[in-house]
Amino acid sequence: MNSSSKKVPIGKRAALRVAVLGATGYAGVELLRILIRHPRVRLTVITSRQYAGKRVSEIYPSLAGQCDLVLEEIRIDKIASQAEIAFAALPHETSMEVVAGLVQQGQRVIDLSADFRLHDPETYLHWYRAHKAPHLLRDAVYGLTEIHRREIGKARLVANPGCYPTGAVLGLAPLFAEKIVQGTVLIDAKSGVTGAGRSSAVELSFSEVNENFKAYNVGVHRHIPEIEQELSQIAKKPVTVFFAPHLVPMSRGILSTIYVELRKTLDDEKLTRLYKDFYRADPFIRILPAGSFPQTKEVRGSNDCAIGFRYDSRVKRLVVITAIDNLVKGAAGQAVQNMNLMYGWPEAEGLTGTALIP
Amino acid sequence: MNSSSKKVPIGKRAALRVAVLGATGYAGVELLRILIRHPRVRLTVITSRQYAGKRVSEIYPSLAGQCDLVLEEIRIDKIASQAEIAFAALPHETSMEVVAGLVQQGQRVIDLSADFRLHDPETYLHWYRAHKAPHLLRDAVYGLTEIHRREIGKARLVANPGCYPTGAVLGLAPLFAEKIVQGTVLIDAKSGVTGAGRSSAVELSFSEVNENFKAYNVGVHRHIPEIEQELSQIAKKPVTVFFAPHLVPMSRGILSTIYVELRKTLDDEKLTRLYKDFYRADPFIRILPAGSFPQTKEVRGSNDCAIGFRYDSRVKRLVVITAIDNLVKGAAGQAVQNMNLMYGWPEAEGLTGTALIP
Amino acid sequence: MNSSSKKVPIGKRAALRVAVLGATGYAGVELLRILIRHPRVRLTVITSRQYAGKRVSEIYPSLAGQCDLVLEEIRIDKIASQAEIAFAALPHETSMEVVAGLVQQGQRVIDLSADFRLHDPETYLHWYRAHKAPHLLRDAVYGLTEIHRREIGKARLVANPGCYPTGAVLGLAPLFAEKIVQGTVLIDAKSGVTGAGRSSAVELSFSEVNENFKAYNVGVHRHIPEIEQELSQIAKKPVTVFFAPHLVPMSRGILSTIYVELRKTLDDEKLTRLYKDFYRADPFIRILPAGSFPQTKEVRGSNDCAIGFRYDSRVKRLVVITAIDNLVKGAAGQAVQNMNLMYGWPEAEGLTGTALIP
Amino acid sequence: MNSSSKKVPIGKRAALRVAVLGATGYAGVELLRILIRHPRVRLTVITSRQYAGKRVSEIYPSLAGQCDLVLEEIRIDKIASQAEIAFAALPHETSMEVVAGLVQQGQRVIDLSADFRLHDPETYLHWYRAHKAPHLLRDAVYGLTEIHRREIGKARLVANPGCYPTGAVLGLAPLFAEKIVQGTVLIDAKSGVTGAGRSSAVELSFSEVNENFKAYNVGVHRHIPEIEQELSQIAKKPVTVFFAPHLVPMSRGILSTIYVELRKTLDDEKLTRLYKDFYRADPFIRILPAGSFPQTKEVRGSNDCAIGFRYDSRVKRLVVITAIDNLVKGAAGQAVQNMNLMYGWPEAEGLTGTALIP
Repeated sequence: MNSSSKKVPIGKRAALRVAVLGATGYAGVELLRILIRHPRVRLTVITSRQYAGKRVSEIYPSLAGQCDLVLEEIRIDKIASQAEIAFAALPHETSMEVVAGLVQQGQRVIDLSADFRLHDPETYLHWYRAHKAPHLLRDAVYGLTEIHRREIGKARLVANPGCYPTGAVLGLAPLFAEKIVQGTVLIDAKSGVTGAGRSSAVELSFSEVNENFKAYNVGVHRHIPEIEQELSQIAKKPVTVFFAPHLVPMSRGILSTIYVELRKTLDDEKLTRLYKDFYRADPFIRILPAGSFPQTKEVRGSNDCAIGFRYDSRVKRLVVITAIDNLVKGAAGQAVQNMNLMYGWPEAEGLTGTALIP
Repeated sequence: MNSSSKKVPIGKRAALRVAVLGATGYAGVELLRILIRHPRVRLTVITSRQYAGKRVSEIYPSLAGQCDLVLEEIRIDKIASQAEIAFAALPHETSMEVVAGLVQQGQRVIDLSADFRLHDPETYLHWYRAHKAPHLLRDAVYGLTEIHRREIGKARLVANPGCYPTGAVLGLAPLFAEKIVQGTVLIDAKSGVTGAGRSSAVELSFSEVNENFKAYNVGVHRHIPEIEQELSQIAKKPVTVFFAPHLVPMSRGILSTIYVELRKTLDDEKLTRLYKDFYRADPFIRILPAGSFPQTKEVRGSNDCAIGFRYDSRVKRLVVITAIDNLVKGAAGQAVQNMNLMYGWPEAEGLTGTALIP
Repeated sequence: MNSSSKKVPIGKRAALRVAVLGATGYAGVELLRILIRHPRVRLTVITSRQYAGKRVSEIYPSLAGQCDLVLEEIRIDKIASQAEIAFAALPHETSMEVVAGLVQQGQRVIDLSADFRLHDPETYLHWYRAHKAPHLLRDAVYGLTEIHRREIGKARLVANPGCYPTGAVLGLAPLFAEKIVQGTVLIDAKSGVTGAGRSSAVELSFSEVNENFKAYNVGVHRHIPEIEQELSQIAKKPVTVFFAPHLVPMSRGILSTIYVELRKTLDDEKLTRLYKDFYRADPFIRILPAGSFPQTKEVRGSNDCAIGFRYDSRVKRLVVITAIDNLVKGAAGQAVQNMNLMYGWPEAEGLTGTALIP
Repeated sequence: MNSSSKKVPIGKRAALRVAVLGATGYAGVELLRILIRHPRVRLTVITSRQYAGKRVSEIYPSLAGQCDLVLEEIRIDKIASQAEIAFAALPHETSMEVVAGLVQQGQRVIDLSADFRLHDPETYLHWYRAHKAPHLLRDAVYGLTEIHRREIGKARLVANPGCYPTGAVLGLAPLFAEKIVQGTVLIDAKSGVTGAGRSSAVELSFSEVNENFKAYNVGVHRHIPEIEQELSQIAKKPVTVFFAPHLVPMSRGILSTIYVELRKTLDDEKLTRLYKDFYRADPFIRILPAGSFPQTKEVRGSNDCAIGFRYDSRVKRLVVITAIDNLVKGAAGQAVQNMNLMYGWPEAEGLTGTALIP
């Protein structure tokens, strides 16, 4: 089959050389899906411990003719010499050493693991374990694009946010920036199964997940310190949240239902203006008309974050609901969005695909 | 095929004669599934406007040889003469006239619609429309078995609870009875699709629901007044809740995640004792060890309500999670449980089936 | 919770003592679900290598109050002394040694693995590996109840059929018995995911199976020799079939679409009579009106096998479609049906549950 | 939000003006998804009877900022003046009048309904009803791109193939062209639910389809004459097939398992060469290594057709399995592929998206 040449966009040869580490996990293969179409980059190195030596299109036949690179073991020096930027989609706690090695070689890195998201090594120790590259923690920029756009542009190391924090913080940031939140925010989040990665755990097998709905890690999920770190920074004071994640029998998508007590009553018009103003420069944030809410399907496969809200005067609570695709805005898409900023390209470059409906 | 005689339990001929109205809806066919096995009753009349004249086993082939009755139009006098008790699984707002007619004929009725659940005609008017049989509203007993067991035993008309209120009130009743709740309770509920009944709405079609998750009727769902009526009665003061239902891409099951602020801190042991004491006589309530939560699959097809809780000292909130099968404990199963009480039979008679796993 | 005593059927103490080996796999837990309700048996021993020492209700909370036995390691002598019959739901190739040990102790065994289904050790060697108890192969009775009812009644060792062979052979037996099949029979079978057991394989994880459909082991599946052995015996000459299994994104159910070339044309009436006569004594076989076909949902959770057919005169082919629940008629239900025969009880005892719809 | 301008590709103003009729059905909205990204076209008219007067982005919020056109009623003259080509994604039997009107105005049309697929009005009458524009039947080009590429390039009216015929004919064409098929070909096809369109039928509701698998229209499906017309043309003699479609509980995808008796034995290498030679110029056909088969997920959201095969020497049958996304290669994608040919553009223009995995 000679389709390969037919499908490759023109001009890729002069493009930025990119590496994807952990390319066969779900975030990794989603990075490939996006980067293959990106007009300014060229994939040069892809790695996989499990499948080293095989073409990635043997593992994911949908990539045949689009990306036929051979998967390699990770070799820092080789990656550093063959790529200008590396996306690391490696497991938490194993990513940090690889990333530290690459940064030392002067390479730019976007790390999709949790390893560089928390600025404080003590917090990392509390929720994970002792950090092996704590000197990088304060240099790494938290890659929630809409919040840290300016720093990301100049970063050498971007810590790409977790999927839950992306949906939660984007829904709450305008309220905390406006200092109108009081009491404890409750985040009741529901995620598709790919959020757990490509896993062989029995409890993620089809027969266990299908026709089932459950909560897990209620109040103890590792994304809690990320959410609190970011909201505290925006609020300019310590913020504590209650976070309850749930597992939905679907593959992609996170819906976050967020309950907020406000310091003062704002009508729909003012709330709409608050959200639209806050995100006025953001191509991927979609603010819905007051009183209507997003569904996960309307963002599936796209980099959008859709946000709806409703103030309930009966109980004096604001409910905010955000929807993202956990693998796109919650992982690979936001990572590419961050790369675009790091190289001064249009933020939406390579990310304009419409959600796959139905 | 002569299998029919082989499968019918013995002694049914002397049994209580039972009618099921609206037998081809999901609650109706679930009633058939349960009543066919019930050792003390015999189905004599089943009705369906849409399929009148056909055997129910033509519509649901799984019933062949188990229930081959012909579906009829509703005729009050015929039902009253051929059955001693009627289960009405009819649409809201159309049920009330049929039920009023049956009650007038002296028949006992368990109504699965919303029409007799609210005691106050004003509240009914506010959330539905003008009631046509308001004189029955205060006589009807709200059929949440664990809460109103004594009145149900003597009732002529039982208003079987909504699926959401069943899960929510069972999770909250011990706390309100103990008067330890303060602030507004938030109920974030997630339901399988059968909760909407057997429907031809496009938004309930497979292609729309599958791989999708969404909230709906946030803060305005008609089950809100039911929940508040029951909790207010238990608390002996007006209770207001915030209720946000969501649609899960699965057929059966409701998981209710309930966030409660407590007036005083209770440790796990005291909370466990509170729940276990409150439900000590209840065969279908399963209290989980503190800190662990139920999944909907563990109650699918059974009449159980599983309850888990965890007190989060970081944010000083109690989270209670309940799981029921919306068609069993949330509808047909609880209706049969109520019938058992009305006739002085063991409460679990005909309801001892184990959840279908996986 | 003192619900346990409330739910246990009366008179179990004088009942047949039963062991279930491999009680936490899907066939095992389905056996528990059925046996708990069976009026003539009492569970005395349940085993699990993985969970030995724990109550089964810790693993499957839905069993709490219904079966709170502690899971044990397999000890042949203990099982032989505490139970009169053992259901072995162990992995293929590991079952044979346990079963041989139990049989040697004089215990009756129903083996749900493939280890004793093939009468010919050479065939076993070809499709599996060398058999360790070949002396038992010819004594074991193939437990397809409707075909081998008489031998099963007298058997000490029943080899319970595979799920695919159950659906395929039941659909074809009347035709081969009548000697009207010519050419190669094609069986295009579609199974839910529980057919693969409780597995941690990545390819059975939710994210891989959901929104996907695929064939697997086409023409090489290990159920082929079982199907051919049984059909050859019925046809009294060697039969070869083409078997193509597929994986359906659902938990339970097998639909087998079977394409048959007939030696002579039979009209609908004659075909219907052929099927109904063949299965006239069989309470779990449901023959549909000619031209209509079953769905898997109408047998989910029940021991039924529904059979539909249509003769296509355009292409002179008969298509037969059968539907079973792979965990009930395809495993645990048929095993209990066989036990009923072995003890001279009514064949449907404990198996009269209606399919769970929807 | 001013994201709209950011996402619109450059140079669209000079592009071909395109209309999509029936833009809110599933094929229609998939056309929008693809055409929005197509670098050489500009959407100018979109129609919907049901939603006329609303912005399409109100119905499908995922299109907000990407396509905010207002949906209109169909007005032939307006469409003809504002667009150079029209995609008609209208219901069967209602499409023909609209298409005839457009063709009469000199407009090029790609019709996604079945109305112009059959060349013979008698056949149309037999399977549908009397045709209202029979004069166009012989002019219309059947739009199976890989088979009719040359005629499509010159066509004014392209009848876009049905989803099932696309998967079936692409799998069989090389064999019939080589004249090595004998006997009746059996096509056992399995489709996701979107194949039935955006429907409010109860039997397509989530609760009915989920956890269910069934056959439908076995031997009588309206796609049979299409398949036979195309295969007969390739074979240069009348071909009859047996076609049995099934409904899979998933949204997108068709897997066709095709059983073929060959006139002579071909080894894997020769079969591979036969397929690869036949499709050597086709960028969207992916031939798998002999003995391996495609899954629907690997083509989801892409215009690919993946083909695998295996010759079974035990039964002397070739099994061919093809996988397509019914909404892309089976509808909207192939329609755009045909448009590309009609305007002399690269065939893959606007269609290079990779499958959405997982």
